Amino acid sequence: MTLRLYDLAGAQPERRFSPYCWRIRLALAHKNIATETIPWRFTEKAEIAASGQTLVPVLVDGDRWISGSWTIANYLEDTFPDSPSLFGGVSGRGLTRFYSNSADSLVSAIFPFVAFDILQHVADKDREYYRASREKRAGKTLETLVADRHARLPAFRAILAPLRLTLKAQPFLGGERPLYADYAVFGPFQWARCISPFPLLEEDDPVRLWRDRLLDCFDGLARAAPAYDTEVNVTFADQHK
Amino acid sequence: MTLRLYDLAGAQPERRFSPYCWRIRLALAHKNIATETIPWRFTEKAEIAASGQTLVPVLVDGDRWISGSWTIANYLEDTFPDSPSLFGGVSGRGLTRFYSNSADSLVSAIFPFVAFDILQHVADKDREYYRASREKRAGKTLETLVADRHARLPAFRAILAPLRLTLKAQPFLGGERPLYADYAVFGPFQWARCISPFPLLEEDDPVRLWRDRLLDCFDGLARAAPAYDTEVNVTFADQHK
Repeated sequence: MTLRLYDLAGAQPERRFSPYCWRIRLALAHKNIATETIPWRFTEKAEIAASGQTLVPVLVDGDRWISGSWTIANYLEDTFPDSPSLFGGVSGRGLTRFYSNSADSLVSAIFPFVAFDILQHVADKDREYYRASREKRAGKTLETLVADRHARLPAFRAILAPLRLTLKAQPFLGGERPLYADYAVFGPFQWARCISPFPLLEEDDPVRLWRDRLLDCFDGLARAAPAYDTEVNVTFADQHK
Repeated sequence: MTLRLYDLAGAQPERRFSPYCWRIRLALAHKNIATETIPWRFTEKAEIAASGQTLVPVLVDGDRWISGSWTIANYLEDTFPDSPSLFGGVSGRGLTRFYSNSADSLVSAIFPFVAFDILQHVADKDREYYRASREKRAGKTLETLVADRHARLPAFRAILAPLRLTLKAQPFLGGERPLYADYAVFGPFQWARCISPFPLLEEDDPVRLWRDRLLDCFDGLARAAPAYDTEVNVTFADQHK
């Protein structure tokens, strides 16, 4: 039976932009698991009520509803033990949790750069929910939140130093081949790429080059999604002046 | 033949306080490798000249001189394949490099809290070298560097969030048992603990509890070293008023 994944989408159903869902899309591809993705909007809480919570990703496997990216990744590893390992073994699973948690912090670090751009892409029915919930959490308007993003860019790039040094020395966080640790950390960058023209990473940054290697994985799965890239940025920026 | 490790020491030869050497001491214990540690001071560059550089840890195995904690860890893993793995396999080795680099950033984050306390412990002949080299790097005096450390403490503790979440969910970074990833990140905390009474971590912080679990490993190897702990802090602080 084909699995189903509820996947956050924008006004365009093909624009998928959850950092947490992207992790799982790549994890499913890594394990060669055929999955139907269902475009889901922030306000469609009723559709995933069976999962017992209100956020995506939600994976549906027969009558099992699994939520939370770390829980889903572990479910896939345990349920499909004959597919390539997401973690690289028992020790690898332990070592991967910190990546997952670090990537969550990365989402928080990137949000003040892309918060307003996201608003341009969410479905009409989600706009008010998105703005109200995010402004409440941030304690300021989306416009104010991103206003000084250019000034904050050097500090953001500086916190990527350990990632940068690592990816200068080896092609993937998992070593020669990507593992779930890669997908977990890739998620926030792909999220930003999917909804914002803002150039978070310099083109020759080893983090950017690693991101691009992951865009090429699984026949370009992540690259095929509607997103911004350097060339496109200019056009988009010009269009939105 | 017993290996030798040049290990940074203070005025007291037993006070070992390099975050990078501590990683290797625990790695050697993990692999059950008998090693003689040689107390070394910052200015004893000539003693490790055969390593081709000027910093510890330096491991001497017969006529091989190996320097750099990551290089040494890999050397131990490859040279002693029958001892317990430091990385948890091939994937684990890939996954561990980011921990090593993250821990190096942690050293930089902790330094402005303990920079002046270190001065109280370095050997007399190292004092001028230590102060001059560190003040040049920081662009300010050691006293100025640490002056606002109480105000900076909440921000420091906040950056530990991914580590804290991870160690709330599992006993070690490597999962159920410690791996080199643990030793790499433990190093900076043990360094601070060995030379400063400043309480970087709250007593019930999962990061602190994990640190304490590592103090107990290998028959309390890291706990046996001269250091400060909560009880001692008060005394030391009072003594230095």
